[in-house]
Amino acid sequence: MSRTAAALVIGNEILSGKIADTNTAFLARGLFELGIELRRVVVCGDEVDTICSELNALRSSHDLVFTSGGVGPTHDDVTIEGVAAAFGRPIVRSEAVESVIRHYYGDRATEAHFRMANMPEGAEMLRSAEAPWPTVVIENVYVLPGVPEIFELKFTDLRKRIDHGHEFHSQAVYTKSGEGEVASLLEEIAQAFPSVMVGSYVKWQAEDYRTKVTFDGNDPEQVAKAADMLVEKLDPALFVRREQ
Amino acid sequence: MSRTAAALVIGNEILSGKIADTNTAFLARGLFELGIELRRVVVCGDEVDTICSELNALRSSHDLVFTSGGVGPTHDDVTIEGVAAAFGRPIVRSEAVESVIRHYYGDRATEAHFRMANMPEGAEMLRSAEAPWPTVVIENVYVLPGVPEIFELKFTDLRKRIDHGHEFHSQAVYTKSGEGEVASLLEEIAQAFPSVMVGSYVKWQAEDYRTKVTFDGNDPEQVAKAADMLVEKLDPALFVRREQ
Repeated sequence: MSRTAAALVIGNEILSGKIADTNTAFLARGLFELGIELRRVVVCGDEVDTICSELNALRSSHDLVFTSGGVGPTHDDVTIEGVAAAFGRPIVRSEAVESVIRHYYGDRATEAHFRMANMPEGAEMLRSAEAPWPTVVIENVYVLPGVPEIFELKFTDLRKRIDHGHEFHSQAVYTKSGEGEVASLLEEIAQAFPSVMVGSYVKWQAEDYRTKVTFDGNDPEQVAKAADMLVEKLDPALFVRREQ
Repeated sequence: MSRTAAALVIGNEILSGKIADTNTAFLARGLFELGIELRRVVVCGDEVDTICSELNALRSSHDLVFTSGGVGPTHDDVTIEGVAAAFGRPIVRSEAVESVIRHYYGDRATEAHFRMANMPEGAEMLRSAEAPWPTVVIENVYVLPGVPEIFELKFTDLRKRIDHGHEFHSQAVYTKSGEGEVASLLEEIAQAFPSVMVGSYVKWQAEDYRTKVTFDGNDPEQVAKAADMLVEKLDPALFVRREQ
């Protein structure tokens, strides 16, 4: 049974289309590589009550939850307040982070900067050589920043912690068949191999294939057999190649 | 009062990181231009029950809901079933769409292709010269495909229908200030102009500015006054430029 995960992406700038969220795609790929099933993503605005209720819904129904965004120094950065409210904990100021801020900004440090040292009481703070600025963790919730470069750095750093060695295995078969022509065969394969996720992707731009069929699962043997079944049943003239 | 919108993005391929969703960003920009406030986006997998419950939550609390994905011919395309379940309507086969499919695929048409003619009973079907394949609409829910080229074509076509002429107005001020240095001033401006959304975006790559401050709202005069306030109170040495 795979572990499950959810993401809460926080930011008015994403909902207004000013910034395109790339963190979800990065997180999705990373979790998939670790065999963790991302089941739900919610994008919401910078509002304490909304963050609190969305987070409570997600953390009670998934093994891991990642938040993205809303942890900077400005008035609309309210993720920490939302997280603290969700756990019913007061906000306290971390002296360790305060000293990082003082060191980094020196005389330019303002009260707004020091807001970034606010933490829900009892939160764990993860630091490493690669990500010296701490990542806030409370129970199964990982609070990550919205800036993609830092989000990616921090998630990459977290992988060691959350990797339990149950990665997914994947194979792909490329065919000249259209999606509609292989649909009933794919349904048959999906029923024959219930532990394997079967997906199909149409190529709209000109390529040497029309449909890419993917097979993913925790059991490499089942994945291979499901892909075998497609290759065997496909008209050989329509087979292009296999990736394993 | 702006109208509100939500999006339900449906697809295992997005949650597994195989495909990066670009439809949300396109939709977000388009709705913003029309003065419609996108308040919530949910990404979920290809499961009828999940789509049904997510859609019911979104459509009861937003003026407009857009779904993306899960409307193709394969076994995992179950959005129509989910939408029909949410509205408690049976699925019927549209003869008009059946004939489009017959015309398009000719002898290659399979039963899987004809699944794409399934509709919740009583759904409206929007067609136009630009988007001859119909868009399914039920009450406040617009069912759009996941393929970005078609999603974009269809949404662009829908704009005329949903545009009520209350677009947002935007201005931006670029400054050499860091976000932390202007944070308290931005909070003051946000409080002085409650109808204006004030956002700030740090530039991490080298540019002639460090922070872009945005002002958005339905009332152009309030937007301009909020931007004026920042320009007046900012140290002139840190002002870079204004976009209006």
